[in-house]
Amino acid sequence: MSSSGTIVLGVDPGINHTGFGIIAQEGNRFRYLDSGAIHTSTRQKFPQRLEKIHQELEGLITRWQPEVMSLEESIYAQNVRVALKLGQARGVVVLAAARHGMEFSEFSPKKIKLSVVGNGAASKEQVRFMVTRLLDLPQEPASFDEADALAAAICYLNQNKMQW
Amino acid sequence: MSSSGTIVLGVDPGINHTGFGIIAQEGNRFRYLDSGAIHTSTRQKFPQRLEKIHQELEGLITRWQPEVMSLEESIYAQNVRVALKLGQARGVVVLAAARHGMEFSEFSPKKIKLSVVGNGAASKEQVRFMVTRLLDLPQEPASFDEADALAAAICYLNQNKMQW
Repeated sequence: MSSSGTIVLGVDPGINHTGFGIIAQEGNRFRYLDSGAIHTSTRQKFPQRLEKIHQELEGLITRWQPEVMSLEESIYAQNVRVALKLGQARGVVVLAAARHGMEFSEFSPKKIKLSVVGNGAASKEQVRFMVTRLLDLPQEPASFDEADALAAAICYLNQNKMQW
Repeated sequence: MSSSGTIVLGVDPGINHTGFGIIAQEGNRFRYLDSGAIHTSTRQKFPQRLEKIHQELEGLITRWQPEVMSLEESIYAQNVRVALKLGQARGVVVLAAARHGMEFSEFSPKKIKLSVVGNGAASKEQVRFMVTRLLDLPQEPASFDEADALAAAICYLNQNKMQW
């Protein structure tokens, strides 16, 4: 299996902030393409917030044409109310992958941390630090959502590297 | 405010079965238009299941042109894992409302039961029975998902009737 040039979109879904990170595999190296966060306002109605997340993600997919979407498994929400909100944001994110025929990958938080930091119990700060180093970014990602999205993308590519 | 002719799409989202019910207000009466359930298989991948729910719902919206989507508030999932799955199904349902510029209404389970049965603690069987009567259906809806979706639609129209 050759993954040369594979473009991966990592996403960290959330109703307020959805982090995204787009990287490519080029030979043995990662190439950083784009990252950031989609923000919605509590002043918007809930359906319109979901629509914004979905639309902006579709814009990124159209622009970068990633073949893969990589997400952290979210089975760890604090409570049912939070889980239902998070689930709805996640649903419109996953739908974007399906609508664009993308491969879809999920990893446990532990697996992502192991892959990026080498420690399954790494802190968010450690993940952000290593993401910055691995991608040779000029500065740290502005938010943990963005760093976590990039980490999910890196995890996918590392995972596949092991299979070569 | 005149709601004469208003077409309402009630939905009971779920990853396995998403019930739907479409009714119209005509003067003092309800007119039944369509109802049923969207089923997905556990043999399908999760993103494809979400896509099927979203697509079939969009098909119904295109066909019937409802102005309103009415849902039961789902803040009552048994646990976080269930809530995350349900949330994702719900997210792609709510997104369909936003993408088609529909008004979006939510009601508590208690309010829907009160509106349809006159008893906020009514059983699912009672809701199904009253839905069948109120809409003058030749037989009971095949599933509780379908009956609950119709009940959400009835609740919206009853609610608005009170404001006339």
